Amino acid sequence: MLAEFLGTFVLILLGVGSVAVSVVGLPGSGRQFVEFGPANWLIIAWGWGLAVVFGVYVAGGVSGAHLNPAVTLAFTVRRDFPLKKVPAYWLAQLCGAFVAAALVYACYHWAIDAANAKAGLPRDESLGTYSIFATFPAEYFGDSWWGPLLDQIVGTGILLLLICALIDLKNVAPLSNLHPFLIGLVVVAIGLTFGTNAGYAINPARDFGPRLFTYFEGWGDIALPGTFGWFNGYWWIPIVGPLIGGVVGVLVYDLMIKPLITARTQAMEDQEEGPATEEP
Amino acid sequence: MLAEFLGTFVLILLGVGSVAVSVVGLPGSGRQFVEFGPANWLIIAWGWGLAVVFGVYVAGGVSGAHLNPAVTLAFTVRRDFPLKKVPAYWLAQLCGAFVAAALVYACYHWAIDAANAKAGLPRDESLGTYSIFATFPAEYFGDSWWGPLLDQIVGTGILLLLICALIDLKNVAPLSNLHPFLIGLVVVAIGLTFGTNAGYAINPARDFGPRLFTYFEGWGDIALPGTFGWFNGYWWIPIVGPLIGGVVGVLVYDLMIKPLITARTQAMEDQEEGPATEEP
Amino acid sequence: MLAEFLGTFVLILLGVGSVAVSVVGLPGSGRQFVEFGPANWLIIAWGWGLAVVFGVYVAGGVSGAHLNPAVTLAFTVRRDFPLKKVPAYWLAQLCGAFVAAALVYACYHWAIDAANAKAGLPRDESLGTYSIFATFPAEYFGDSWWGPLLDQIVGTGILLLLICALIDLKNVAPLSNLHPFLIGLVVVAIGLTFGTNAGYAINPARDFGPRLFTYFEGWGDIALPGTFGWFNGYWWIPIVGPLIGGVVGVLVYDLMIKPLITARTQAMEDQEEGPATEEP
Amino acid sequence: MLAEFLGTFVLILLGVGSVAVSVVGLPGSGRQFVEFGPANWLIIAWGWGLAVVFGVYVAGGVSGAHLNPAVTLAFTVRRDFPLKKVPAYWLAQLCGAFVAAALVYACYHWAIDAANAKAGLPRDESLGTYSIFATFPAEYFGDSWWGPLLDQIVGTGILLLLICALIDLKNVAPLSNLHPFLIGLVVVAIGLTFGTNAGYAINPARDFGPRLFTYFEGWGDIALPGTFGWFNGYWWIPIVGPLIGGVVGVLVYDLMIKPLITARTQAMEDQEEGPATEEP
Repeated sequence: MLAEFLGTFVLILLGVGSVAVSVVGLPGSGRQFVEFGPANWLIIAWGWGLAVVFGVYVAGGVSGAHLNPAVTLAFTVRRDFPLKKVPAYWLAQLCGAFVAAALVYACYHWAIDAANAKAGLPRDESLGTYSIFATFPAEYFGDSWWGPLLDQIVGTGILLLLICALIDLKNVAPLSNLHPFLIGLVVVAIGLTFGTNAGYAINPARDFGPRLFTYFEGWGDIALPGTFGWFNGYWWIPIVGPLIGGVVGVLVYDLMIKPLITARTQAMEDQEEGPATEEP
Repeated sequence: MLAEFLGTFVLILLGVGSVAVSVVGLPGSGRQFVEFGPANWLIIAWGWGLAVVFGVYVAGGVSGAHLNPAVTLAFTVRRDFPLKKVPAYWLAQLCGAFVAAALVYACYHWAIDAANAKAGLPRDESLGTYSIFATFPAEYFGDSWWGPLLDQIVGTGILLLLICALIDLKNVAPLSNLHPFLIGLVVVAIGLTFGTNAGYAINPARDFGPRLFTYFEGWGDIALPGTFGWFNGYWWIPIVGPLIGGVVGVLVYDLMIKPLITARTQAMEDQEEGPATEEP
Repeated sequence: MLAEFLGTFVLILLGVGSVAVSVVGLPGSGRQFVEFGPANWLIIAWGWGLAVVFGVYVAGGVSGAHLNPAVTLAFTVRRDFPLKKVPAYWLAQLCGAFVAAALVYACYHWAIDAANAKAGLPRDESLGTYSIFATFPAEYFGDSWWGPLLDQIVGTGILLLLICALIDLKNVAPLSNLHPFLIGLVVVAIGLTFGTNAGYAINPARDFGPRLFTYFEGWGDIALPGTFGWFNGYWWIPIVGPLIGGVVGVLVYDLMIKPLITARTQAMEDQEEGPATEEP
Repeated sequence: MLAEFLGTFVLILLGVGSVAVSVVGLPGSGRQFVEFGPANWLIIAWGWGLAVVFGVYVAGGVSGAHLNPAVTLAFTVRRDFPLKKVPAYWLAQLCGAFVAAALVYACYHWAIDAANAKAGLPRDESLGTYSIFATFPAEYFGDSWWGPLLDQIVGTGILLLLICALIDLKNVAPLSNLHPFLIGLVVVAIGLTFGTNAGYAINPARDFGPRLFTYFEGWGDIALPGTFGWFNGYWWIPIVGPLIGGVVGVLVYDLMIKPLITARTQAMEDQEEGPATEEP
């Protein structure tokens, strides 16, 4: 779908752009990723969150604005989305992410080259400038691939659990077409809470599209197969983790919350009390 | 209630996660809590605030999303909630908080161990990594238990006073199901204004659930009975303080604002003027 | 009015509290105001903005939530508020601000004393701890009283101009009872744009209530008559400036925008086109 | 139009004011622009974003609140705005920006002079204080004018693409008159993602109005023709770039999304399914 392509394009353009600002854009910067401070992280967390907000506002009226293969898969498992459309959506999402990464590179390659020159690093050793585009695990995980995988499952699980809540009109879903705003705030929240372990890809297209781009554009082994420094063939984790996590998140909502809402609605209708009143 | 469990789980997962990011997650960090700067505090304040937003959106349609024993008690005092359900709610909240703390630990134990190793501290002397999970008073309180207790009463009092305002449709409560968003912003506000004296537990389950977890997981006396360094058996204050404060907040609203709204509504009906117009 | 008292109390409690966090609350702080960084300023700007949001949500349904003598005066000039009620509103606002300052002091006096001890300053020379409660001009103004006065007029003028726009249902005023949220964001905006020249009192009660409190509580000449260091009898400027500025703001809206809206509405009715459509 | 003048005045007053706070306002500052940190950038990004929010709320009900010659041109290309009114709108926007810059200068000239004195720089060599008012490209662009031009085209393209989405009621445009809030968040997003390459003018009036003011007020060649240091006749880029970019953004929306929405609406009407339901 063209809308899915354009929505994911907006998402990645703004999201990756916010990391570019934090890593090589800010005046006086040009440092490596590992010297980041908490205010840089706030730029990234809000940048990615707002990127989701506006990706959804652009594509929502056409494609439902999944913008994320893990969302598409989870909705398919839930029978909210036809299985046969999944490959087309996934491809559109991946292409949108790849093209957006290319456009960010077109705008920031002066800054990237200046930062690498300042650090005296060739591009294929510059983890800092690579981190603008795709993700990698924190050094403390060492050889463990279970740590980052768990992190991706948990992060994407929260994402889908909360998306389910925010579009369930029988729960307290926001009205006035403000659900895209709140869904974007979910991503701000995940960035502030599960963002630093492994860069919160929580979206296979978000990671693999720009990763492919950096592979072709000279970052080499850092990108694919992801064997730079302490990480060892990392590339598949931000694909598999989110796909698993998204399904987990949907199942938690549908097994734990949905039956309760149905039961409560039923009970109220029986008592002829009218719609539920909230007391949060 | 299952919904109360899951809502509190989301609340603590995101909230505690945001402290984990600030304390041990950010690149290059691994410092102790006492070296925090203001931008770290912004991560924590927004993290906990958004945690409340989404905890309420998940559970609001089923249980009313108290997510906090102090809220449950205050609503019971107000006769908005049946007394006999209180123990079940409290237990669900405590369990949700405990399990969420365990999941955060599962995701961040690599980071925690690396930070402790870097600081050269065994876990039961590491106040910094403990602070990810539960609260403790600032050093300047010395032996005073009245200071942190007052802080908890005031913080929770503000919380309940504002929750009452935000769900009172005769006042200017936000519509379009945006009250969960605004209630989360209350917690952002409290974090920015009454957060640093004693970690703004303002919720007995939020503090005691993760505290229990850290007690079992090796933080020892810091957690229970809370007698590490300058603090002396602190554990009961974030339980008792919020329970008192919540009731105070509800009473202030119901005694000061509610009668005025009733009087104004009455006066208007007498004059047949229709609903009140706002002039903020 | 009791509601005006309580609303202003909430406003000052949260607002002043946010400065307390920034100045003496954050772990490792205890520095003087002049060493602040930009992240501290973000805490203060969001703290005061959210303070306004929730002050208005508490009192809006009863008193219209002026919470500010400058708002009360400006609405009176506009004939939206009866002149005879002005003294009662002003007194309620001042009392609310004074009592809130006292409660913040009750919660933070341990922190204040520790910060002063660390800096080796007696309370009546501690501009940093004074700055928690009330405002003073930046040092670069030197002897000029016109600079801070202009700053207060401009700041309060923006405030009232935008409040008029945000409650004018013939313009694009936000619906769903979200105007208190947007009005709070106005104060965030003013803090980020006109906050540092003289502490953006933009509210006589906000400054004079806490100023009185600090005068009685030992800050002496810094508070009243405001003759500490480079400033010279400053106390009257955050009273007179906002009162003038508020009237200016209302006049700008009523003279420049209101006639245009009336004309446009008229023109549309003549053409039988129905309500205006927005193309922002 | 008077409304367009006043709306742009509010936009520039708040936006430029936020840079003034970051560059010369914050306590202890007075540094040059190039020493900025990420938290200063957050002040600027939120300051400009909220400036847009409130500029639109002030003028939206009268003029549609373009506030930006690039918006006016793009809407004209789209046939949403009559060509003959364009010069009047452009002039009103430019005048609003010029007058707002003058008022910011009136409020901050004490701070500006103090900062320049501290840095030992005459005004026409002070890039830092110039940066309060107008934009310039990052040093890493060297002689390239294509880099900043591309940056301006991309930034303004995103702006117009998202404005089109946010006011398209057949898509998921926010209701309850909250589109001005979301449009302001677009500008926060652009600041966090495409703000550092060349100061994100993305609005010819926003840059050229204050630039003219600084030219007359003593910044000389830095302002016009923009030949200070490494940049070479920069002044025309933030005029031409946004005008091109705005048209590109509108075309992308109208060619890629609009036909899909029409097709989907058509398909649904054929099936008599009623309006589209969202599944973001």
